[in-house]
Amino acid sequence: MRCKPISLIILCIILPLVTLAQSKREPAFKFVPLGVLGGIDESNLSAYMLAATDSNKYICLDAGTLHYGIEKAVANKTFTVPGNQVLRQYIKGYFISHAHLDHIAGLIINSPEDSVKNIYGLQNTIETIKTHYFTWESWANFADQGETPALKKYHYQVLTPGNETAIENTDLQVQAFPLSHSNLISAAFLVRSNDDYVLYLGDTGPDAIEKSTNLQSLWQAIAPLIKDKKLRAILIEVSFPNEQPDKTLFGHLTPHWLMAEMDKLAALTGSQPLKGLNIVVTHLKPPASSISKIKEQLKAANTWQLNLVYPVQGKALNF
Amino acid sequence: MRCKPISLIILCIILPLVTLAQSKREPAFKFVPLGVLGGIDESNLSAYMLAATDSNKYICLDAGTLHYGIEKAVANKTFTVPGNQVLRQYIKGYFISHAHLDHIAGLIINSPEDSVKNIYGLQNTIETIKTHYFTWESWANFADQGETPALKKYHYQVLTPGNETAIENTDLQVQAFPLSHSNLISAAFLVRSNDDYVLYLGDTGPDAIEKSTNLQSLWQAIAPLIKDKKLRAILIEVSFPNEQPDKTLFGHLTPHWLMAEMDKLAALTGSQPLKGLNIVVTHLKPPASSISKIKEQLKAANTWQLNLVYPVQGKALNF
Repeated sequence: MRCKPISLIILCIILPLVTLAQSKREPAFKFVPLGVLGGIDESNLSAYMLAATDSNKYICLDAGTLHYGIEKAVANKTFTVPGNQVLRQYIKGYFISHAHLDHIAGLIINSPEDSVKNIYGLQNTIETIKTHYFTWESWANFADQGETPALKKYHYQVLTPGNETAIENTDLQVQAFPLSHSNLISAAFLVRSNDDYVLYLGDTGPDAIEKSTNLQSLWQAIAPLIKDKKLRAILIEVSFPNEQPDKTLFGHLTPHWLMAEMDKLAALTGSQPLKGLNIVVTHLKPPASSISKIKEQLKAANTWQLNLVYPVQGKALNF
Repeated sequence: MRCKPISLIILCIILPLVTLAQSKREPAFKFVPLGVLGGIDESNLSAYMLAATDSNKYICLDAGTLHYGIEKAVANKTFTVPGNQVLRQYIKGYFISHAHLDHIAGLIINSPEDSVKNIYGLQNTIETIKTHYFTWESWANFADQGETPALKKYHYQVLTPGNETAIENTDLQVQAFPLSHSNLISAAFLVRSNDDYVLYLGDTGPDAIEKSTNLQSLWQAIAPLIKDKKLRAILIEVSFPNEQPDKTLFGHLTPHWLMAEMDKLAALTGSQPLKGLNIVVTHLKPPASSISKIKEQLKAANTWQLNLVYPVQGKALNF
């Protein structure tokens, strides 16, 4: 009979610690945002470095701004090596969601100082990079296909949706998914490190407006990972506040439309797995007043208790 | 006989004042550099706003970085209106020297927030903008020619070398000259306000390396203006220090090659008119150590006593 109080003590002290340890898992990934905004500020356009926590073998998800973001991260002591070493040695490859200039300008501008590496993307994105940016009229052809002479610093690697591909010079794997971004096919990249995942989405409109099932298919693919607590974070865009009319979304999301998509995800996962899920909100479009509105509207509509995170240029995030 | 000392007094006091007034003329132009570097820093790429001194009807010579440079100028109190007003109302047109991305990225990125205006350039430059940047694969077609639908915010205006063209919505006139920039035709813009001129050169190699006579022709055209003291300033690039081998100049100048071109200009004007001529040195390529070297080498080679000016992002220059 004397064991009962001891059992109670164990129950009251040990169990919560175990639960805490489970919910506060060690991070599996680190992100370094090099640019976070959805437009007009050339010094802060979409680009996110990503590596496994214990590694400096980064990939760069989109590449709107590189140099200025890297310098900011160095100034913040997020990196302890010089900026040119981050560019040349830490970044092992670029994943371009689509070829709009605000997602690739930094890669083109920095190419003369860069090292040999791969550029990954869906077929249509690679094609536009090849025919519009790495050409001798608009720049120089630093890639290995397209106009001659090809300087062969970059190797184009086309990703096929549905296939998981090993990312060269890293221990990461990636799977690409098509997204609907007005007239363009954009992409989401599901990145795996061992048994953990993160999902990065390029620009996307909601399925209902885009008359698409691309997001629905993506939610179906990742729902099991969320239920198994293997998906550490989703990076997804919210470009405009709810005041933006549906007919002028230009293939983007508002807080309303993000939450409508989260409702569809919840229908697949149930509500419990979404609670506390890290949702990194990207591509907010200036002015500052719009950005404040987006944050307020997301907070007010957060019925699934998602952990809404707003990335800051040059400051690391660990998930 | 008593008039002699008075004559001497007049000679000693009045004449120097008259001379001073002549050499310290009122400025005719103001420049606001929005970006001054020759690469990799997305926040500081070639772009120079220019207006007659008493006017806010600016043109923008190249447009590598707009938003970040405007914000810096507003922070410096160079402009006393908000940045979006500078973009939309002060800038009346863009003059693009050539279509390399570091000279046009800011224009493309800022186009959604911009107002209706003209884009001026030589035929080949306009053609590349039309087929590579303002397309629906790489951006949106904000111009009035090229892929449909054309959003018609910008009107392309092709400049013909040899013709002086009135710049719409300003009191300025412009004449374009072709330059040799490796495989590309680049441009110089000679801008006139009443009887005063400034000359802006886009990227250019030296005639000797480019196997061209474009710079020689330009010097012949402007020599009379220099002799008549009508040319207020020349903005010209020096991208690399002298250590850069001739075979890897990629259509750029070094201090040595700039001064070799200035020798050719001096042969047309004589040495006296060059003394004190404002030479604004643009497009210096990082790293900082190269930029310091360029400045030292130019200073050491400045036999014509040119007034070498290094523009600073967001700080006005008056000539």
